[in-house]
Amino acid sequence: MEHSVRQALRACPFISRTPVQALKQLSQTTPTAPASALLSKAQACPVMGQALSARFTHSSAKTPTAEVATESVSTPSPGEPFDYEQVYRTELDKKHQDKSYRYFNNINRLAKEFPAAHTSNVNNKVTVWCSNDYLGQGRNPCVVGSMKQTLDRYGAGAGGTRNIAGNADLHLRLESELADLHHKEAALVFSSCYVANDATLSTLASKLPGCVIFSDSMNHASMIQGIRHSNARKVIFKHNDVADLEAKLQQFPVGTPKIVAFESVYSMSGTVGHIEAICRVSKKYGAITFLDEVHAVGMYGPRGAGVAEHLDYQLNLNHPHGQNGSVLDQVDIITGTLGKAYGVVGGYIATSASLVDMIRSYAPGFIFTTSLPPSVVAGSLASVQYLKLSSKERVMQQINTKLLKARLAELQIPVVPNPSHIVPVLVGDADLCKQASDSLLTDHNIYVQAINYPTVPRGEERLRITPTPGHTPAMTQHLVVALATIWKQYKLKYTQDWAAEGGRAGVGMVVPSAAEPESVAEVEPIWSEAQLLAEIPNGINRCHCEAVDELSTVTTESDASTTRVAA
Amino acid sequence: MEHSVRQALRACPFISRTPVQALKQLSQTTPTAPASALLSKAQACPVMGQALSARFTHSSAKTPTAEVATESVSTPSPGEPFDYEQVYRTELDKKHQDKSYRYFNNINRLAKEFPAAHTSNVNNKVTVWCSNDYLGQGRNPCVVGSMKQTLDRYGAGAGGTRNIAGNADLHLRLESELADLHHKEAALVFSSCYVANDATLSTLASKLPGCVIFSDSMNHASMIQGIRHSNARKVIFKHNDVADLEAKLQQFPVGTPKIVAFESVYSMSGTVGHIEAICRVSKKYGAITFLDEVHAVGMYGPRGAGVAEHLDYQLNLNHPHGQNGSVLDQVDIITGTLGKAYGVVGGYIATSASLVDMIRSYAPGFIFTTSLPPSVVAGSLASVQYLKLSSKERVMQQINTKLLKARLAELQIPVVPNPSHIVPVLVGDADLCKQASDSLLTDHNIYVQAINYPTVPRGEERLRITPTPGHTPAMTQHLVVALATIWKQYKLKYTQDWAAEGGRAGVGMVVPSAAEPESVAEVEPIWSEAQLLAEIPNGINRCHCEAVDELSTVTTESDASTTRVAA
Repeated sequence: MEHSVRQALRACPFISRTPVQALKQLSQTTPTAPASALLSKAQACPVMGQALSARFTHSSAKTPTAEVATESVSTPSPGEPFDYEQVYRTELDKKHQDKSYRYFNNINRLAKEFPAAHTSNVNNKVTVWCSNDYLGQGRNPCVVGSMKQTLDRYGAGAGGTRNIAGNADLHLRLESELADLHHKEAALVFSSCYVANDATLSTLASKLPGCVIFSDSMNHASMIQGIRHSNARKVIFKHNDVADLEAKLQQFPVGTPKIVAFESVYSMSGTVGHIEAICRVSKKYGAITFLDEVHAVGMYGPRGAGVAEHLDYQLNLNHPHGQNGSVLDQVDIITGTLGKAYGVVGGYIATSASLVDMIRSYAPGFIFTTSLPPSVVAGSLASVQYLKLSSKERVMQQINTKLLKARLAELQIPVVPNPSHIVPVLVGDADLCKQASDSLLTDHNIYVQAINYPTVPRGEERLRITPTPGHTPAMTQHLVVALATIWKQYKLKYTQDWAAEGGRAGVGMVVPSAAEPESVAEVEPIWSEAQLLAEIPNGINRCHCEAVDELSTVTTESDASTTRVAA
Repeated sequence: MEHSVRQALRACPFISRTPVQALKQLSQTTPTAPASALLSKAQACPVMGQALSARFTHSSAKTPTAEVATESVSTPSPGEPFDYEQVYRTELDKKHQDKSYRYFNNINRLAKEFPAAHTSNVNNKVTVWCSNDYLGQGRNPCVVGSMKQTLDRYGAGAGGTRNIAGNADLHLRLESELADLHHKEAALVFSSCYVANDATLSTLASKLPGCVIFSDSMNHASMIQGIRHSNARKVIFKHNDVADLEAKLQQFPVGTPKIVAFESVYSMSGTVGHIEAICRVSKKYGAITFLDEVHAVGMYGPRGAGVAEHLDYQLNLNHPHGQNGSVLDQVDIITGTLGKAYGVVGGYIATSASLVDMIRSYAPGFIFTTSLPPSVVAGSLASVQYLKLSSKERVMQQINTKLLKARLAELQIPVVPNPSHIVPVLVGDADLCKQASDSLLTDHNIYVQAINYPTVPRGEERLRITPTPGHTPAMTQHLVVALATIWKQYKLKYTQDWAAEGGRAGVGMVVPSAAEPESVAEVEPIWSEAQLLAEIPNGINRCHCEAVDELSTVTTESDASTTRVAA
């Protein structure tokens, strides 16, 4: 026994690489947590777990193998039972101590007063500036009307899994629509894109023998979980660093199956994946690409298919169906959500017909769950169809983003530079970030959630602001004044303060440029000025939804801003 | 290198315990699958994976460590890229070959003609006999009306995670209602109960140092995944076998944290967990209990809290709030769904306040996903509130179940014996099961999905029938005649045929009884005759929902059957 444990320890990659100090810390116990973290790790290890389990069995002097059933036994093993509640309290204390404990705000977004919401007091109205209902599709009469009609016709829930009574014509139509949107053979809808990413990555990688997954260091939790659950080998490459990715890809034979997993718009920074270059280098080394377009679908491209579609804007506008030689063709698997720009809920993948069929046939997270309600599917279908035809909302959203970013830049309020629709305002301290958010809510009737660790690194805490087409210039002005007040009140750092410290998260970072050696990083937006100007007259005319007129009325005030700002 | 690999191999619990023949099979390669399954397993191993990765790095003669970034490299490693599509096709072929490939039927359940649906042809109507909308709550005007009102008021989607703009008063109210329903301190809502089980088990077990999970052998896929994802040690006990559970629990010190995970109603067999005995033995050995009531909530107990509530029916009827000394108090964690008897979609846990707060704070599957739409939450809340007050639907469902089981027993059509509302009709062959299901649909306008491997064991393929309060005696008669026709047409086995073979899945199994030594297993239903008779006059009177009158009109025909059968 001793001998084999010593052997295992020598071969163990964890023990042999972990510093002695770290091992000492892991092995500490307290009266309330008598089992050390090291013991926990050891029990999870396939080698040590066996050895330890044998020891437990012997020391408790009971039946040596688990397979032998015994008669009812009268006395339990000696000792005190484990104190579960103490663990829960300790884990919560940790969250309080490191300021990562989350307090949920009570926010009730009002469809008829978008982007307003009431708080726990229905008479207290606030303007929401951090929702992911980026385009206000959640209150689009096309979407809401279609959901209400479907509720009357098909009832509240699907009533079963896709295999048992829960597969309606609506589900099939939505999947066809999404496949067409992304120029792919097929699509598959899941409860959420968290589930889509988790189920697809874990199932796919577990089916590819010896698969290695290359994952961008800023990938979303759902992808990280999917990779972990696949048990495949993971190689992390530096955020958006194509050279680093290539260096890591080339360390494996071209015949080894590989998946490169990344995002188009990274939610918390607004940075955008180098889709074309990542696809090129992936193909070169025999890897397939898995692109999460969750924060981009509905928002970019002539039909709202995302950043991959946007990269060949004119080509995709002219040839909107099937393979057409654009970058979209180079992405093997695209995942998206129906819960952000599309304004409803649910997630999906779009890829080859055989891969969709394999995931459909093997992924437990798809198979063993009630399918999305018909009304949710109908609302999503209406929203996808609407945004395939109308560019108005995404153009207005971009214009409002430009306006807000410009106003904040004038005041040196620090925004993490990025080419997308996200406006991350850097605070850099967990306490101050929560105080700023609370002050916005209580003193200014503005709701922007504080984003703290672990969603962003410590020291990069931020207010993540998301303009919509429904935010009027007056609302933008009110927000900017409120932020200016809070920046002064709480003595928060301005862009120049960050620059003086060498910059952080892209804020105040100096670009090495010959012309302006001291200039601050400038980023070219995904939506170019020319594209915005070209789409303004086209957007609404290309949409044939009957309810558009009603919607236009709702957004008149915002339209005015559109025209003025773009002019 | 060689030496350390040999060392690792000797210590490896997989290699040392796997028969040589199995290893030979695993190591086979084909031209289309050049990497063996053994290589894939080795690469996933924390010990071998390192050794193999080092070998790859050396043989490709590239940068030896992954951390060193390199300049762009012009030539990939030699060899052919991996053929991904071939793997997808091979995996699908396997499904076709073992008859486990799933063909989804196109079923559109009509709210106003419950339990009817149209197929892909809107004029082709069928009666649905296999939905999990057990009580028809999906068309309950309380539920649908509340969803439509909420759509108008709060729009289509939540617009964010619970932490960022997606936490409305409705979510908090639903969680309070669910906590009260299960007599627990708190509850937490998830996208689905698949996610609730996966996220809760994986997070909880990973927080308890050295945790061991004891899992019923028939547990649902979501629990199996949650346990797998926790990386905790798993011990499987025989289905519903309390002695086997105890024998396995006693092999660990009482101070070792343990979770016993099981279900109340097992969906595919209709068998019911021995909740009281399992809780007792769990407490004895210092384990906490995790009970999945997914197929029981809404259906059992005076307020629809499930089987655990039903066990002390009168006590819970008289003391419906908080701890009251009933079996419910002994269950530490209850999970349930809003997508089956409650008729909408979503899942939840109900447990102690501190455990809910820990899961809320740590589970990625809860934190990083868009929250359920306000309309879905409102519909679920209305449904839970309605079924807390009205017993009518569950009583009628039970009576219709009794009627169907009795009629099938008369005809010797084999039903897996069980005390619940599930009617699993044993076919015992994958092909015949699909043919029977297809014939029901095309020849008899009845939809019952075939349930094949891997959802049930091979040789136990079945038609899983779920009566509802909406199925009239005429519909039951039509179903019974159709099944009798199909049993004759396809020469399917009757109960006596199964008995002659020694029985299968409980069908035709002989009970050792002195009085009737040859009698077939009889099971006492959860809902006793006395409870059903007592609830018939009470049910509807206890419900205060304004829309009940409208609902009563819809179900008049079924009411008639209720009275007749129960009399």
